[in-house]
Amino acid sequence: MEIQNETRHARGLRLLSAVDGRGSEEVVAKVAAISPDFARCLVEFPFGDVYARSGLDLKQREIATIAALVALGNALPQFKVHVAAGLHVGLTRGEILEIIFQMAVYAGFPAALNGLFAAQEVFTAEDAKAA
Amino acid sequence: MEIQNETRHARGLRLLSAVDGRGSEEVVAKVAAISPDFARCLVEFPFGDVYARSGLDLKQREIATIAALVALGNALPQFKVHVAAGLHVGLTRGEILEIIFQMAVYAGFPAALNGLFAAQEVFTAEDAKAA
Amino acid sequence: MEIQNETRHARGLRLLSAVDGRGSEEVVAKVAAISPDFARCLVEFPFGDVYARSGLDLKQREIATIAALVALGNALPQFKVHVAAGLHVGLTRGEILEIIFQMAVYAGFPAALNGLFAAQEVFTAEDAKAA
Amino acid sequence: MEIQNETRHARGLRLLSAVDGRGSEEVVAKVAAISPDFARCLVEFPFGDVYARSGLDLKQREIATIAALVALGNALPQFKVHVAAGLHVGLTRGEILEIIFQMAVYAGFPAALNGLFAAQEVFTAEDAKAA
Amino acid sequence: MEIQNETRHARGLRLLSAVDGRGSEEVVAKVAAISPDFARCLVEFPFGDVYARSGLDLKQREIATIAALVALGNALPQFKVHVAAGLHVGLTRGEILEIIFQMAVYAGFPAALNGLFAAQEVFTAEDAKAA
Amino acid sequence: MEIQNETRHARGLRLLSAVDGRGSEEVVAKVAAISPDFARCLVEFPFGDVYARSGLDLKQREIATIAALVALGNALPQFKVHVAAGLHVGLTRGEILEIIFQMAVYAGFPAALNGLFAAQEVFTAEDAKAA
Repeated sequence: MEIQNETRHARGLRLLSAVDGRGSEEVVAKVAAISPDFARCLVEFPFGDVYARSGLDLKQREIATIAALVALGNALPQFKVHVAAGLHVGLTRGEILEIIFQMAVYAGFPAALNGLFAAQEVFTAEDAKAA
Repeated sequence: MEIQNETRHARGLRLLSAVDGRGSEEVVAKVAAISPDFARCLVEFPFGDVYARSGLDLKQREIATIAALVALGNALPQFKVHVAAGLHVGLTRGEILEIIFQMAVYAGFPAALNGLFAAQEVFTAEDAKAA
Repeated sequence: MEIQNETRHARGLRLLSAVDGRGSEEVVAKVAAISPDFARCLVEFPFGDVYARSGLDLKQREIATIAALVALGNALPQFKVHVAAGLHVGLTRGEILEIIFQMAVYAGFPAALNGLFAAQEVFTAEDAKAA
Repeated sequence: MEIQNETRHARGLRLLSAVDGRGSEEVVAKVAAISPDFARCLVEFPFGDVYARSGLDLKQREIATIAALVALGNALPQFKVHVAAGLHVGLTRGEILEIIFQMAVYAGFPAALNGLFAAQEVFTAEDAKAA
Repeated sequence: MEIQNETRHARGLRLLSAVDGRGSEEVVAKVAAISPDFARCLVEFPFGDVYARSGLDLKQREIATIAALVALGNALPQFKVHVAAGLHVGLTRGEILEIIFQMAVYAGFPAALNGLFAAQEVFTAEDAKAA
Repeated sequence: MEIQNETRHARGLRLLSAVDGRGSEEVVAKVAAISPDFARCLVEFPFGDVYARSGLDLKQREIATIAALVALGNALPQFKVHVAAGLHVGLTRGEILEIIFQMAVYAGFPAALNGLFAAQEVFTAEDAKAA
């Protein structure tokens, strides 16, 4: 790992923490156990290169990501990470449910329903942690 | 058409106009020429029922829709309508490009590139109208 | 909730019951526990507005829905609801398997195989209820 | 080409003609000019093996295929072939529009709108031929 | 079943065994328990007609299939069968992880991450069998 | 642009040239005219970070990419770039057609047919250049 990558890496870790709190450290560790290179890339490209950009604030970025992951429909684990991240950067539960509802228009009701149930699992887990 | 549907319809037309300016009147007219029922539904459900809800402002709604349409990748005509709508409700070109860029992470570079070129077509058309 | 929505709502509930028997009451209740508005919309738009239309009978509508949900491939819970609904409106198990088989041509073998296994789960559950 | 394949091939050609009239002969010829093996396979597997099966009639098969191709959203040329095929096996224009409308529920409005416009192109071409 | 189909069938079984070792016999048996016709077709078309062709060796075919199944993202059970098949025809674990990594570029990080975790499950199961 | 990025950038440009010959310089320039940052990222992440990795040779990488882009089905412009790239790194036309044929199994015939026609456009353009 060259020094310049460490700089991207540090920036990536900082953004990852700003976005997800502790949640995605786990994901990164789980990836690193299989492929350290892919784990490094996961920190550096999405977070160090993209989320670190100005132009959108983190709340706006999470609106975009949550919408896209509902629409894609094949990435429920990542969707749940970003529901937690959305709450972490200041979206309310109501706003997240509203994004999911809107996706019924663009990606159909099955995608929206699966998003709704997955979001509820995240909310329930947060409630359990808070209790 | 029952009176209660006209109420949803009026609300839908108001939202449609708030979101798209004149752009989607054309789409509705084009749909109505094929299926008046589907045109009415297009006004009433996405706009009268969903966009009319509180919980997200129109700018946030367009961030979600633009992100989803890039990610889905199979709806470039609708994507272009919503790029124009995004500008209409106050997103900047830079913010729209930023949403598209972010989608490279979630939906891959081909989807993002197709979004980028389609957005540019909208920007160019707006410039031509402004000239 | 305005009176006109209750009318759509009542029509939606009637269609939902015609299509799914008791099956989707559960889904609606599960959705309502998270978002009452989305639950109402789920009754009113797909069932009150779309399934209630003339032009296709319920058996033809379920052929279309089952085919689409196999092809989309990311909505197995909804697919299973509609396999049960298909049986409820008069499709035979053989006809449902035939739709799934045909989807191997249009959406590929993995989508068809996942549909086949999910349909079998529904058939097995129906057998258990009948026993 | 072995004799047994010719049997599948003959059955495939018979079904292809029953489904599409002259329309897909063109498609097969266009494919054969690039890959004769793929053209033969296109006749033999989808038509000789699948459409030739009993269990669904051709009208039901076209309902399933039209629904799936709207939902998949990335196959408009094939969708248009099957809109023409649907008319050929006895679906009305109204029934085809109804299938497309229903797909707004399962695959979202953009997919349904693209299907609607593509179907209209087929209807217009049929009118021009009839004139 | 006609004699000519048995020939395709025998060729399909031979290829299936060359590709998957014992793994997909299970899949075929599981399919046959639901639909014997679909099971026969699963042997004959993908394996008897396609994998049996010259033009690509089995290692190249598995690179293509593994890449496509990561990208499609809605077929994890089939993806896992083909990770095992890839190992069986001589791809290394490192090569399989590399294909998955590359898919982050074309289908996005969520699809790649889901592929990574599913591949790891296959590797772990192979280790357990070898122990 | 920091020095370390130039290193990734230089590596990206080298790989891009190894993969695509002159073809994707055009794509990069077209992207840079809209978003210089996205153009730089397109060079650095897919080519500088991913294609530059050892573990698969460029021919194997193009097999994976061509397969994925056929399967995704919503990225024909990028698919055509990679058909040209595949030829550039040593795949034969027959091998490319074979990958596309195989995708009929995994992503369905419409996706494979669209890939076939798009590949033929690339072959025809190459013939015209060679003439």
